[in-house]
Amino acid sequence: MEDYEELLGKLVEKLSGPNVSEDVIAEIAKKATTDEKTIPVGVSNRHIHLSQTDLDKLFGKGYQLTPLKDLSQPGQYASKETVIICGPKGSISKVRILGPVRARTQVEVLRGDTFKLGIKAPLRISGDLLNSGQVTVVGPKGSVELDEGVIVAQRHIHMLPSDAERFGVKNGDIVTIVIEGDRGGELNNVAIRANDKSGLECHIDTEEANALGMNSKTRIRIK
Amino acid sequence: MEDYEELLGKLVEKLSGPNVSEDVIAEIAKKATTDEKTIPVGVSNRHIHLSQTDLDKLFGKGYQLTPLKDLSQPGQYASKETVIICGPKGSISKVRILGPVRARTQVEVLRGDTFKLGIKAPLRISGDLLNSGQVTVVGPKGSVELDEGVIVAQRHIHMLPSDAERFGVKNGDIVTIVIEGDRGGELNNVAIRANDKSGLECHIDTEEANALGMNSKTRIRIK
Repeated sequence: MEDYEELLGKLVEKLSGPNVSEDVIAEIAKKATTDEKTIPVGVSNRHIHLSQTDLDKLFGKGYQLTPLKDLSQPGQYASKETVIICGPKGSISKVRILGPVRARTQVEVLRGDTFKLGIKAPLRISGDLLNSGQVTVVGPKGSVELDEGVIVAQRHIHMLPSDAERFGVKNGDIVTIVIEGDRGGELNNVAIRANDKSGLECHIDTEEANALGMNSKTRIRIK
Repeated sequence: MEDYEELLGKLVEKLSGPNVSEDVIAEIAKKATTDEKTIPVGVSNRHIHLSQTDLDKLFGKGYQLTPLKDLSQPGQYASKETVIICGPKGSISKVRILGPVRARTQVEVLRGDTFKLGIKAPLRISGDLLNSGQVTVVGPKGSVELDEGVIVAQRHIHMLPSDAERFGVKNGDIVTIVIEGDRGGELNNVAIRANDKSGLECHIDTEEANALGMNSKTRIRIK
């Protein structure tokens, strides 16, 4: 909030020449106030997080992922490497690996993918893998049969504790978000994940984004 | 409503033996009342409606579609035949043709398909094709370049005028629908299409269904 006030102050100062109407200043102030209440959106396609053990099996002993693009959450990246995931009814290739490696392998699929693959995957928050879905992961050097680890990601909002305070929520809360536009609406059961390593962003998958007309430029608000 | 009342009467009569509690009767009554206020869902994947002229170009002069499965709307069917649709960035095969033939060819794609194909397609109600999207349709005997005709279908509810009266809406109204469940929420901008040839059904596409956790067994209600 202080950032906005400071920025607004500077803008007003800069713009307050003889040709700048009060309307323009009011418009800027309104935009800043609105943005304070909205949250940017991060759209995830299907992807996989690998343990080093599984990375070794798929790509060879001691393999290191090659970062391709930084993600919005600090330290996380999309890697150059992809894998194939296979179920009893079909397979999906070019599934992006996100780095760095994690303690456990986790596959996040779209609801539509579960039909293509012929598998079941529960709606879960990242890390909650007990009795989750099964899939076979295939890489250039080998494959891994996962007894569990496949989920459809429950939509959630990453934020700092200071953001949580600003929005009047706390870590673990479940909220409803509001989406504007010609495919707008509201989505329930959105989990708040507040900790001091999180950038402010609402994470949804591509089916949710397409169904509600959202993209990476969309901003949503908590109801 | 009369159907429900009659059915309920018969059930109560049949069940009102010495072993049937009032709770059971109340439960049946509640279920019937709830169902009266809800609407079944029809989930559409990408598909195409063809004019006879375009059907001729794609499958040969005077070709007749082979019905494979009746759709919920009277007289309409999924045909055995499929086509390929192509845009500048990619193609999608096995796009189902819905019959019977129409005055104009219309392609209904998912928002996600527009990215795969590299095309733009507006959100529109069926038949509103002016300045809609472009695509090339390929069949076994030829191809058709559509200057317009590609849309992402605006969600809508088919109903009879008597249904409209019951729900307190009229043809052309725009409503919000409510979806229960772990991916539940609300979808705005749902068009009411009431006429005397419509079976009661809310039409959404697979991305909308997956994003909101809906399937062909889901029932939604108007807010």
